[in-house]
Amino acid sequence: MPGQRADARRNYERILAVAEQEVARHGADASLEQIARVAQVGSATVRRHFPTRIALLEAVFRERVEVMCARARELAEGPDARAALLEWLSVLVTFSAGARGLVELLQGEGTEGVSEERYCCSAELTGVTEPLVAGAARAGALTPGATADDVLTLVTGIVLATVGRRDQAAEAHRLLALAVAGISP
Amino acid sequence: MPGQRADARRNYERILAVAEQEVARHGADASLEQIARVAQVGSATVRRHFPTRIALLEAVFRERVEVMCARARELAEGPDARAALLEWLSVLVTFSAGARGLVELLQGEGTEGVSEERYCCSAELTGVTEPLVAGAARAGALTPGATADDVLTLVTGIVLATVGRRDQAAEAHRLLALAVAGISP
Repeated sequence: MPGQRADARRNYERILAVAEQEVARHGADASLEQIARVAQVGSATVRRHFPTRIALLEAVFRERVEVMCARARELAEGPDARAALLEWLSVLVTFSAGARGLVELLQGEGTEGVSEERYCCSAELTGVTEPLVAGAARAGALTPGATADDVLTLVTGIVLATVGRRDQAAEAHRLLALAVAGISP
Repeated sequence: MPGQRADARRNYERILAVAEQEVARHGADASLEQIARVAQVGSATVRRHFPTRIALLEAVFRERVEVMCARARELAEGPDARAALLEWLSVLVTFSAGARGLVELLQGEGTEGVSEERYCCSAELTGVTEPLVAGAARAGALTPGATADDVLTLVTGIVLATVGRRDQAAEAHRLLALAVAGISP
C-alpha cells in the first residue's frame, strides 16, 4: 500500500511537471492527451488526478505561485534589501506577463472554488511581499508610506496595461523600471 | 436660415451640456428622456442630434476629452514643466477613474465607429502629453528615457488595477504619487 501511494505521488508529480511545460508552451490550450503522452501515463491516470481541465490548470498555477513564493522568502534572507525587493518585483512581472492567459481563463470560469483559490494566491503573494517591502523600508530604499499592497497593485496595473503589446514581458519590465525609478522623483 | 442653424447649434450644445451632467451623475445609465426634460427640448429633438444612445455617450466622451486636451495645451505653456506634467497626470487619473463606466460601455459596443473614435482619442491624448513630457525632460524633471507612451501606459495601468476599489479615484491618485516618486528611486 505505501508503495502504491508513493507510485501515485510520483505519477502526480510527473504529470504536474509535464503539465507545467505544456501550459508554458501552449497556455490554456495545452492538450491533456499530449500531457499523458509526454508523462508516459494513460489518459485515465491524468483524469484520475485532475478530473477537469480547470483542475489541472489550477494545480499548475498553484504550483507556480508556490515556487515563486519560496523564491520571495529566499530573497528576504539576502543581504541587500533593495536588490531583493527589485528582484522580487521582476519575478512577479515575468510570471504575470507569462501566466496571463492562464489567469484570464481561471477568472473567466468564475466558480467559487476558483475565486477562493485566487484569493488564497493573492493573500499569499501579499504575505511574502510584506517582509521584502519592510526590509527595503528599513534600509531606507523605499518611498515612505508605500505598502506591499501599493507595490503589488502597481505591478498588476503594469501587467494589465501591457496586455496585447507585441512583447508584453519586455514592455512590462521597462515600465517596472520606470515605476521603480519614478516618473519624476 | 442662419437663425435656424444657430438655434439648432444652441440646442445641440444645451443637450450636450445636460447630457454631460446626467452621465456624470448616472454613468451610462443616464436617461435620454431625463436629458430632454432638463434641456427643455422634446425627445424627438434629442434623437435628431443623437440618433442612438451610443452616439450621445460618444459625443459626451469626445467633449470631455476635448476639454481635457485643451487643459493639457494650457498647462504646457506654464512656467513649471514638472508641475505641469504632474497636474496633467492628475487630471488624466481623475478623468479615467470617473469615466470608467462610460469607457467600458463604449468598448463593449465594439463597433468600428467606436474603435475609430477611441483610437483618435488615444492618439490625441498622446499628442498633448508629448510636449509636457518633453518639457519635463528639458527641465531635468523626468527619468531619462521615459516616453509619453510609457507615462500614459503607467497611468492606464493604475486606473485598470484600481477598478472596483471602494474609492477608486483616491486609490489611483495615491498610486500615481508612488509612480511619480518611484517605488525605490
